[in-house]
Amino acid sequence: MPMDAVNHQFKLAARPVGLPKSSDWSFEEEPVRDPGDGEVLVKVLYVSLDPAMRGWINEGRSYIPPVAIGEVMRALGAGVVVASNHPDVAVGDHVTGLLGVQGYVVAHGNAVMKVDTSLAPLPVYISTLGMPGMTAYFGLLDIGRPQPGETVVVSGAAGAVGGVVGQIAKLKGCRVVGIAGGAEKCRYVVEELGFDAAIDYKSENVEAALAEHCPKGIDVYFDNVGGEILDAALARLARNARVIICGAISQYNATGAMRGPSNYLSLLVNHASMTGFVVSDYGDRYAEGAREMAGWLSSGKIKTREDVAEGLENFPETLLRLFSGANTGKLVLKVADE
Amino acid sequence: MPMDAVNHQFKLAARPVGLPKSSDWSFEEEPVRDPGDGEVLVKVLYVSLDPAMRGWINEGRSYIPPVAIGEVMRALGAGVVVASNHPDVAVGDHVTGLLGVQGYVVAHGNAVMKVDTSLAPLPVYISTLGMPGMTAYFGLLDIGRPQPGETVVVSGAAGAVGGVVGQIAKLKGCRVVGIAGGAEKCRYVVEELGFDAAIDYKSENVEAALAEHCPKGIDVYFDNVGGEILDAALARLARNARVIICGAISQYNATGAMRGPSNYLSLLVNHASMTGFVVSDYGDRYAEGAREMAGWLSSGKIKTREDVAEGLENFPETLLRLFSGANTGKLVLKVADE
Repeated sequence: MPMDAVNHQFKLAARPVGLPKSSDWSFEEEPVRDPGDGEVLVKVLYVSLDPAMRGWINEGRSYIPPVAIGEVMRALGAGVVVASNHPDVAVGDHVTGLLGVQGYVVAHGNAVMKVDTSLAPLPVYISTLGMPGMTAYFGLLDIGRPQPGETVVVSGAAGAVGGVVGQIAKLKGCRVVGIAGGAEKCRYVVEELGFDAAIDYKSENVEAALAEHCPKGIDVYFDNVGGEILDAALARLARNARVIICGAISQYNATGAMRGPSNYLSLLVNHASMTGFVVSDYGDRYAEGAREMAGWLSSGKIKTREDVAEGLENFPETLLRLFSGANTGKLVLKVADE
Repeated sequence: MPMDAVNHQFKLAARPVGLPKSSDWSFEEEPVRDPGDGEVLVKVLYVSLDPAMRGWINEGRSYIPPVAIGEVMRALGAGVVVASNHPDVAVGDHVTGLLGVQGYVVAHGNAVMKVDTSLAPLPVYISTLGMPGMTAYFGLLDIGRPQPGETVVVSGAAGAVGGVVGQIAKLKGCRVVGIAGGAEKCRYVVEELGFDAAIDYKSENVEAALAEHCPKGIDVYFDNVGGEILDAALARLARNARVIICGAISQYNATGAMRGPSNYLSLLVNHASMTGFVVSDYGDRYAEGAREMAGWLSSGKIKTREDVAEGLENFPETLLRLFSGANTGKLVLKVADE
């Protein structure tokens, strides 16, 4: 590891209004510093691009403080340790953590998690074995509590979370309907992931299609998108339905008021619930989720797909692919070779 | 009982758009008919006026079929049996049930419930010992699950349901904040019902007042009103909060789109839930609720208040008092002396 290496970083330059513009970021460089006592130096190999990042750059109260102006953009990532002053972490170890949108990061050894790339490729640890997979696992199973024979609907079905939600629901014996944008994504979730049906919200009337594909109503609705699709799903709830609020990607870049679900009184007439969560609420149960998910992956019961873009310098445009719905599977940015 | 008695009835003449107008009703009369086998003839003494009635006259899917055009308006009520062909019901018995907005009703003896007016005055059986009381009881305790020391907020706090919700929450050791319209209602819920604080939504900024009165956030929010007040409460949720959707009286007469709660992502950041219900979901547990509520009433731990208007012919205007917020306590229409 050349100690005169340069660290390239994306910092937040301005709070975006609507979709983040290139001028909302500044691409800077600084020398890589030596790790201090207990710290490790990680070379970042993959930056995880997640819808939640849009929320992290808004001002105001949320589940974690916003990224400050001038701060390196927060991101999950995966990399390799190139220097270590921590007894439990060795040079060459692969790790994941909040590494930031940058080429190198110095972090405390306890703040990164070692992963075993002999069991799964590194990007999978920020995908189905990482935050999106745990989000699907705990949201569906802990909040949704799907029972065999029930109908589970998931929006963002071709995304990193939605694709896993539907596959777990199939393992649990449910009828699974995905909502996604475009014929190719719909083909992917039915033919490759094994969903029972898919609805293309770009070309179909979602409410009518839900009526067709969910004749007994929706028992579990896992929502990643909000907006009109959430309202369409609410209109088709079965009695005692559980709605899981995981995200609202259709609303994250809204410049006006957030659109609330105007059909929410469907909760009343159907004795139904709508429950929100973020995956960190389940931090103390990650090991349980990761263990079961790893088993499903290795036995081929769950498929994982990563949509890999390349080049740290392409971060601003690549992030926008999440909001235009251009990605299928987990969007990651490969920033370096090992 | 004179068998040539005339039955006056309000029938639904048209589906209201917005607030029901007098022309949406027809006031008709017909001869009182003799009860058939197993039936009883009830002289209606009190008609219950409830926000849910507005939903019953809309077209479309809900938890019960809508009142048809030309049908007697559906209403809960209390009366006295004046003729009986049912072995378990005697002339002179007091009963409650879905009696309709009319002077007399012939019903099957199994479709009415006998009540004991030596324990509580008859109107209380369509108030705190009836549907509104059971609504408060099961909604708060079964869905809200308030714990000692938690903060409970209820809207429509001076109404039939809200006033009971707050009093039960006090019995459970909670800090209780009511939201009501006007200084007199706020005085009533604090001084007479024992709430810790009240917010006058007509003269105060509700969000700022909630911040002041709920410094640790809202653990349980019991919503009767929807609209802006629901959004203000969502903005102040504590972690693991439970929101109970009991009604949305601010929205029932809306002629445009229903306003959805635009702050619903507060559920996500706070790992909170929003659950709806109608009291009939708890039909098999009424006896349990009624027994406990009767105990609280007789020991003075819960107070009940009925706001009694008079005259069947005044039904259309009296119903509107619910939507203008004119009533304090349970609104009932006395339609006859015994």
